[in-house]
Amino acid sequence: MSSVTETFIPTLKNIQDAARLLEGLAVRTPLLESPQLNDLTGGRILVKAEMLQRTGSFKFRGAYNKMSRISETDKAKGVVAYSSGNHAQAVAASAKLLGMSAVIIMPKDAPEIKINNTRGYGAEVILYDRMKDSREAIGEKIALERGATLIKPYDDPLIISGQGTLGLEMAGQARDMNARLDAVLIPCSGGGLSSGCATAFNAVSPETNIYSVEPEGYDDMAQSLSSGRKVAVDGKAKSICDALLTPTPGDITFAIASKLLAGGLVVSDKDAANAMTTAFSMLKVVVEPGGSVGLAAVLSGAYDARGKTVGIICSGGNVDAKTFTAALR
Amino acid sequence: MSSVTETFIPTLKNIQDAARLLEGLAVRTPLLESPQLNDLTGGRILVKAEMLQRTGSFKFRGAYNKMSRISETDKAKGVVAYSSGNHAQAVAASAKLLGMSAVIIMPKDAPEIKINNTRGYGAEVILYDRMKDSREAIGEKIALERGATLIKPYDDPLIISGQGTLGLEMAGQARDMNARLDAVLIPCSGGGLSSGCATAFNAVSPETNIYSVEPEGYDDMAQSLSSGRKVAVDGKAKSICDALLTPTPGDITFAIASKLLAGGLVVSDKDAANAMTTAFSMLKVVVEPGGSVGLAAVLSGAYDARGKTVGIICSGGNVDAKTFTAALR
Repeated sequence: MSSVTETFIPTLKNIQDAARLLEGLAVRTPLLESPQLNDLTGGRILVKAEMLQRTGSFKFRGAYNKMSRISETDKAKGVVAYSSGNHAQAVAASAKLLGMSAVIIMPKDAPEIKINNTRGYGAEVILYDRMKDSREAIGEKIALERGATLIKPYDDPLIISGQGTLGLEMAGQARDMNARLDAVLIPCSGGGLSSGCATAFNAVSPETNIYSVEPEGYDDMAQSLSSGRKVAVDGKAKSICDALLTPTPGDITFAIASKLLAGGLVVSDKDAANAMTTAFSMLKVVVEPGGSVGLAAVLSGAYDARGKTVGIICSGGNVDAKTFTAALR
Repeated sequence: MSSVTETFIPTLKNIQDAARLLEGLAVRTPLLESPQLNDLTGGRILVKAEMLQRTGSFKFRGAYNKMSRISETDKAKGVVAYSSGNHAQAVAASAKLLGMSAVIIMPKDAPEIKINNTRGYGAEVILYDRMKDSREAIGEKIALERGATLIKPYDDPLIISGQGTLGLEMAGQARDMNARLDAVLIPCSGGGLSSGCATAFNAVSPETNIYSVEPEGYDDMAQSLSSGRKVAVDGKAKSICDALLTPTPGDITFAIASKLLAGGLVVSDKDAANAMTTAFSMLKVVVEPGGSVGLAAVLSGAYDARGKTVGIICSGGNVDAKTFTAALR
């Protein structure tokens, strides 16, 4: 990738640094196993319960890793971020921990729980129209006006290495359970989590195949991996996976993913709802639609788990009661 | 207590033995903390997420501890148990692990998920009418006929010391988080969990006050603790807390509880539903009605958590989608 120099590609060392920095602040979320889920899929399924992370999703790992390294001078000017909601909460919570101000630009159709929680952490929230406005433009304008540091949701080496701590942690937990992971399935929006975790697994468990999983209509990473170049979807499709509606991978994330991912999987909204229900009844955890697509891939058969040991990242649990109860029906 | 000799009162050593036996089989469930929940209650709330235990409730700890010690001769004759559903699943799953047959007597109005899971583990399920039949009588009849070992749900030293492993584990996790627990609130049916955990805390954290929590109409432990002798309720009240409908404490459990508990708290069905909703939105875990009463006690004000560090046991997550969605509304 000519546009992404090696300097910007995070390494295992960057992820280990991030892990040290997050120790005692990020939750070491459990790796769950359910005999019922194993029976159902015919494989051994290990689920990283990242909805139990601080702020209810993995996004805290990257945001805090990035924001805690902002210089003292810049800290006073605060941060700005655009996000469908999980990065928003992560940036807001990190800002509160670090004593900074935060402005967050969120789509007006984001789940209420995400908007309310972001405000609850003390951030200023600006709502925009996903179909009309450019969140990037709004974010950059505010960054310019206030001198605030823009905290990108995924295309930043420090964000990617923060998210990679999840993969490093998961690899260690699987080892402790005497599990040799054949594959790990990762919900994918801009690719920060998949590229970070792929970097970690490539270093400590290179035999594990890493797959991104996306909802129908937003399979830009899958298409990009197939064609070997960044592809954009039109972003007009409806999906319950509010966290995964990014139309194209990031430059850095795709540079990593194109080297380290085994492929991209796609699931439907119905598959996602079914996975949320299975997580409710067999794992007793709350998974939001976008967080459930990895589990959806083994349940729908998009990935055939029979005879395999498969790691699944359930990446978040910030879902309104209304959406959750609709999925259970 | 003249009817309970010291021989039958479990000690810390019995709990430590059980913990060793359960290692690698029982899940070391996480102790969760939510800044939002702390803000809401004005205290520091640490939630033991025992719905993540094997079989979806704490009951596996006691059942496996008891059943793995059955003699080889008796193993062949199988086990029998009566249970509203969580002990049922625990006995069924333990029987499967130990290669034994199991007959479980369950109320016909038990949640479907509990009946189905119990059958799913390979047990034979016999349904009875809670208002008419005596589950104890049915259980003892089958035990006599088949020579099967009766696995009581709570009034057995090995069951109590198995459940006590939860308390021992929780005390260690709190210590690791630099938390000095002022109180621990424990859902109470027959008292196996509260008496086991009280034994553990009394040994390793004697300054912590232990409270049982029960639903309205089934506050037999609270009444028994107040009056200093075992009290029975009529057991005719309706409650969504299907796991906690036992009309009177056990002999052994009350002998322990009357010495070690600070008191008994009571919550309403509405409080329980509210706690289930709070666990959903702030902790991202699925708690069944009976498993939520400890959390309900701090949210309702039955226990005033302001300025205190409070451990809450969320004891199970086996709840039908219908009951769960009704609680979220």
